[in-house]
Amino acid sequence: MLHYETTFPVRYYETDQMGIVHHSNYIRYFECARNALIAEGGYPIEECEKDGIVIPVVSVECRYRHSARMGDTVKVVAEIDQVPLAKLVIKQAVYNQDGDVCAEGEVTLAFLDKATGRLVRCPDKLLKIIENNL
Amino acid sequence: MLHYETTFPVRYYETDQMGIVHHSNYIRYFECARNALIAEGGYPIEECEKDGIVIPVVSVECRYRHSARMGDTVKVVAEIDQVPLAKLVIKQAVYNQDGDVCAEGEVTLAFLDKATGRLVRCPDKLLKIIENNL
Amino acid sequence: MLHYETTFPVRYYETDQMGIVHHSNYIRYFECARNALIAEGGYPIEECEKDGIVIPVVSVECRYRHSARMGDTVKVVAEIDQVPLAKLVIKQAVYNQDGDVCAEGEVTLAFLDKATGRLVRCPDKLLKIIENNL
Amino acid sequence: MLHYETTFPVRYYETDQMGIVHHSNYIRYFECARNALIAEGGYPIEECEKDGIVIPVVSVECRYRHSARMGDTVKVVAEIDQVPLAKLVIKQAVYNQDGDVCAEGEVTLAFLDKATGRLVRCPDKLLKIIENNL
Repeated sequence: MLHYETTFPVRYYETDQMGIVHHSNYIRYFECARNALIAEGGYPIEECEKDGIVIPVVSVECRYRHSARMGDTVKVVAEIDQVPLAKLVIKQAVYNQDGDVCAEGEVTLAFLDKATGRLVRCPDKLLKIIENNL
Repeated sequence: MLHYETTFPVRYYETDQMGIVHHSNYIRYFECARNALIAEGGYPIEECEKDGIVIPVVSVECRYRHSARMGDTVKVVAEIDQVPLAKLVIKQAVYNQDGDVCAEGEVTLAFLDKATGRLVRCPDKLLKIIENNL
Repeated sequence: MLHYETTFPVRYYETDQMGIVHHSNYIRYFECARNALIAEGGYPIEECEKDGIVIPVVSVECRYRHSARMGDTVKVVAEIDQVPLAKLVIKQAVYNQDGDVCAEGEVTLAFLDKATGRLVRCPDKLLKIIENNL
Repeated sequence: MLHYETTFPVRYYETDQMGIVHHSNYIRYFECARNALIAEGGYPIEECEKDGIVIPVVSVECRYRHSARMGDTVKVVAEIDQVPLAKLVIKQAVYNQDGDVCAEGEVTLAFLDKATGRLVRCPDKLLKIIENNL
């Protein structure tokens, strides 16, 4: 299994008037972790895009367990446990500094040829990073 | 079934470097429609919060079908087809001006007593709006 | 003077834990109004970009007067009172439904050739819209 | 002079369809740095708010010099060089990993009693942090 985690503080603008991190921001935290995962692997998203492949999100599922708040430092996890073909499935979670699960979910990505707009298979460079680390 | 839709243009800051609306923003569009639904029903979220009940999101599911882009006017739908007890389930969708489904999903909300942080049942005022319109 | 205003409700995710619209969102509201202004004039930003010119922000000034809140409907104003040459200066303001000024400021934009990254003059189509309406 | 800097990677959702960090996000970066500054000093914003004082933004000025992009790691600076009385002025800047100034500006904050909504002076705890470090 390819496991990656990144840690950062909650930002003030991410809170809402309930006094908690707005639920949409966990979806964004998820993205931070998976982009860090592939950058760490040596093939950052911006390089992939320069190679003509974009990686749009096909679906998102997120279950909210415990609110993150201003002052919290969150740990965001991205995990890949299967070789992607047409789609890449990433398991994601957000924890606070006490180890509470704030949110957990699954994000599915596709690969699109930027020029034609057509679905393509996972780029080889990314495939190798995943295969070598599963 | 309680059906509500609201229409607005895509905002430039909502786009990302793929040239499409960033996927997290559909989750925010969903929220706009369901807040407009309950405001329209006569019990806006800010009034509910003044009455001591907050309505956090328990889970979100979103499937992305067709990218919305700058220049598009999106129609965002919120639908309730069952009386909420502990949880309120809302079906949601985003369409563009051509009627393409951009995204569709389901959002589940809970009701929390602001003072105690405890789960409570759907407030009566909101319950009546839903029951009278199902 | 070219004057444009657009009206929309505050969105829940725009609030922060002070219970008011986060200050960064007025900067985004400003953008909504000026993009609506040029779209209304017949030359929407996405068309301008297709013609190879992007319009980045050079500077922003914003003075905050009165907090907008959830439940408010804001009116956002964009005004142009001089013909742009290298730069386009836009006066901007946000009002609530009671006519209170929530924020006011000034945004300066430049024109860049997308291919070369060089500063260029205001595109003719946009210049004409402005000249014809001053 | 009280100087603080914090460093983090650009996030994908912060880019727009020009392929650069949307200008509103520098305003948010500024906030991250100044909140980290006061947290570092021992009086984090959420504690200040618990003590009954909120710190709204009175004005923002931002001049954009060089676009930050996906893949960049930005360094965000907050500096205080005068003792605050009714208002706290913070000088701010964003640099990329090559040392280019991406944006620079000034943010002015006020202090409000949460209960009364009235302007108050800078809380003593914060004042001491600043005085001891100027």
